[in-house]
Amino acid sequence: MRCERHDRWARRGRGVKNRLRGHPQKPHDAAVKSEFEWIALWQRLQKLPGDVRIGIGDDCAVINAAKPGLFGLLKCDACVEGIHFTRKTPLDLVGRKVMSRNISDIASMGGTPRFALVSAALPDRIPDAGRKKLYRGLTAAARRHGCEIIGGDTSRSRSGLFISVFVYGEVEKNRLLTRSGARKGDHVYVTGRLGGSIKGKHLLFEPRMAQSRWLARYFKPSACIDLSDGLGSDLRRLSDQSGAGFEILAAAVPVSRGCSLRQALYDGEDYELLFTVPPSQSAALMKAWRKHFKLPLTWIGIVRPRAFGLRLTTSSGRRVAIRTSHDHFRHHA
Amino acid sequence: MRCERHDRWARRGRGVKNRLRGHPQKPHDAAVKSEFEWIALWQRLQKLPGDVRIGIGDDCAVINAAKPGLFGLLKCDACVEGIHFTRKTPLDLVGRKVMSRNISDIASMGGTPRFALVSAALPDRIPDAGRKKLYRGLTAAARRHGCEIIGGDTSRSRSGLFISVFVYGEVEKNRLLTRSGARKGDHVYVTGRLGGSIKGKHLLFEPRMAQSRWLARYFKPSACIDLSDGLGSDLRRLSDQSGAGFEILAAAVPVSRGCSLRQALYDGEDYELLFTVPPSQSAALMKAWRKHFKLPLTWIGIVRPRAFGLRLTTSSGRRVAIRTSHDHFRHHA
Repeated sequence: MRCERHDRWARRGRGVKNRLRGHPQKPHDAAVKSEFEWIALWQRLQKLPGDVRIGIGDDCAVINAAKPGLFGLLKCDACVEGIHFTRKTPLDLVGRKVMSRNISDIASMGGTPRFALVSAALPDRIPDAGRKKLYRGLTAAARRHGCEIIGGDTSRSRSGLFISVFVYGEVEKNRLLTRSGARKGDHVYVTGRLGGSIKGKHLLFEPRMAQSRWLARYFKPSACIDLSDGLGSDLRRLSDQSGAGFEILAAAVPVSRGCSLRQALYDGEDYELLFTVPPSQSAALMKAWRKHFKLPLTWIGIVRPRAFGLRLTTSSGRRVAIRTSHDHFRHHA
Repeated sequence: MRCERHDRWARRGRGVKNRLRGHPQKPHDAAVKSEFEWIALWQRLQKLPGDVRIGIGDDCAVINAAKPGLFGLLKCDACVEGIHFTRKTPLDLVGRKVMSRNISDIASMGGTPRFALVSAALPDRIPDAGRKKLYRGLTAAARRHGCEIIGGDTSRSRSGLFISVFVYGEVEKNRLLTRSGARKGDHVYVTGRLGGSIKGKHLLFEPRMAQSRWLARYFKPSACIDLSDGLGSDLRRLSDQSGAGFEILAAAVPVSRGCSLRQALYDGEDYELLFTVPPSQSAALMKAWRKHFKLPLTWIGIVRPRAFGLRLTTSSGRRVAIRTSHDHFRHHA
């Protein structure tokens, strides 16, 4: 069973490479590329060493160079003043957010975070008290999930605050969740409710660590991702890596109170889990989930062939393409 | 022999903790702390998990969670527009610099870099061609030392370019070099020539990887650090971690052509190796070094008891305190 999955995974990996080789996207300087194009470019240019199981393109990089029986997970993610938070955001919440974003990515691969490093460029206007608040936010968010800050660097910034966090995590080799395993017919699930994170959730979310560890252990989703850029964009990521299409039922999407479906699809920063499981496991998953978690789990659609694309089926049966060209948190500014 | 060193190392670790406990530096909000105070604060607050051999305070964090026989080395370091480079610096050199700074830190602990992640906040004004140049600089600098970029994140920046690199490296357990092992009587050495890096070396330096790997294998320096902030500041780091004083002979310091001694002590960004070896090894080291490397190696002083402090002995025999309160690259702006 595991071997078959691994083979499927390996075939898929080659598939992605061949697709990329077959359709070289010539870089053009007319306009700044979207994040998707940028990642595709990097992915084409990288040469994966033997010790690397997954490079650019998933939530974390996956390396073999960890203790036997484990994969190492490497992840970095930044928060930038004016983009991910404003000058008025309390600094402890800035620290919490940037750490939690990284931990959420470790969770989406089924792993646990172990160590973190913090790279910060601090404007002189932030006093010691602010720096300590930032540090407390970082540390508390890390320790809540068993992660310790063991290094980092600080420099001055002449403009805004920039803070990047690097997390080293670990996952049992047979519990690794990737973006690349969704197969035609699999059911699509999402945790929690989507949309409207700008009202506060983008600063106060809790990484779905307990849920993802439980899922990886008992149900091993065929694909999994954390929703950082919105359902539209993150479905595209699953689609790119799995080579599959997705049909989402509009009426099924769990929308946050006071939000529209549009917001649920495109706002981003929900930090919920989006994952797929074979249809045979669907009923058992729902039953077991309700026993373990209060957090809602919602069936929202089905994995289709790649040619299907990403489509939303409305209650009247109309099919609408799901947008994916979300620019990272443009709405925050 | 190794065990004794390990014991000394462990005792020294406790010593540092006790010193910190005995002299709590109360955080004060009047002025922004120096990097030294900031690091001391973090060091006091961190709780090192069992898998961590060295946390905040050395060139890299050292973890046990690597393949058997190896330590994992974790390091991050950033370059910020207006601090480490200007808007006019060619972007391939920016990429080269930030990657090489990290690799230099891995080298200073005797290790080799394996994988890197890049976290970048890019202003919209940088076109695709610029982004590709940045990427090429990063990749070329990494690959020259067997390191591959396997992940990262990009976001927009509303102000300057910020780029942080995380490197995962490895070192054989018995070849780990730290800042903490310098002992009274050890001889102090430095590679290359110091000072004047602003004229170009700060963008074009080559991490001393071959030299440090050779040293770690054949001479195992008792302490080692890479000179990023200038001889004055980095001697202070060795002093803090080793609990030792240093006497440097002014006439012995290898000064770059056209530079003053002052520049050699305080300019920073030399990225040369500063290390100590027991006096019994000094002659053999010099002889073997000259056979292997064209790069100069210079004896510059002796390790003294902690109470001695950091002093420069001039040719007239006068002893002058070495300044350490260098603010990170203030002179670059």
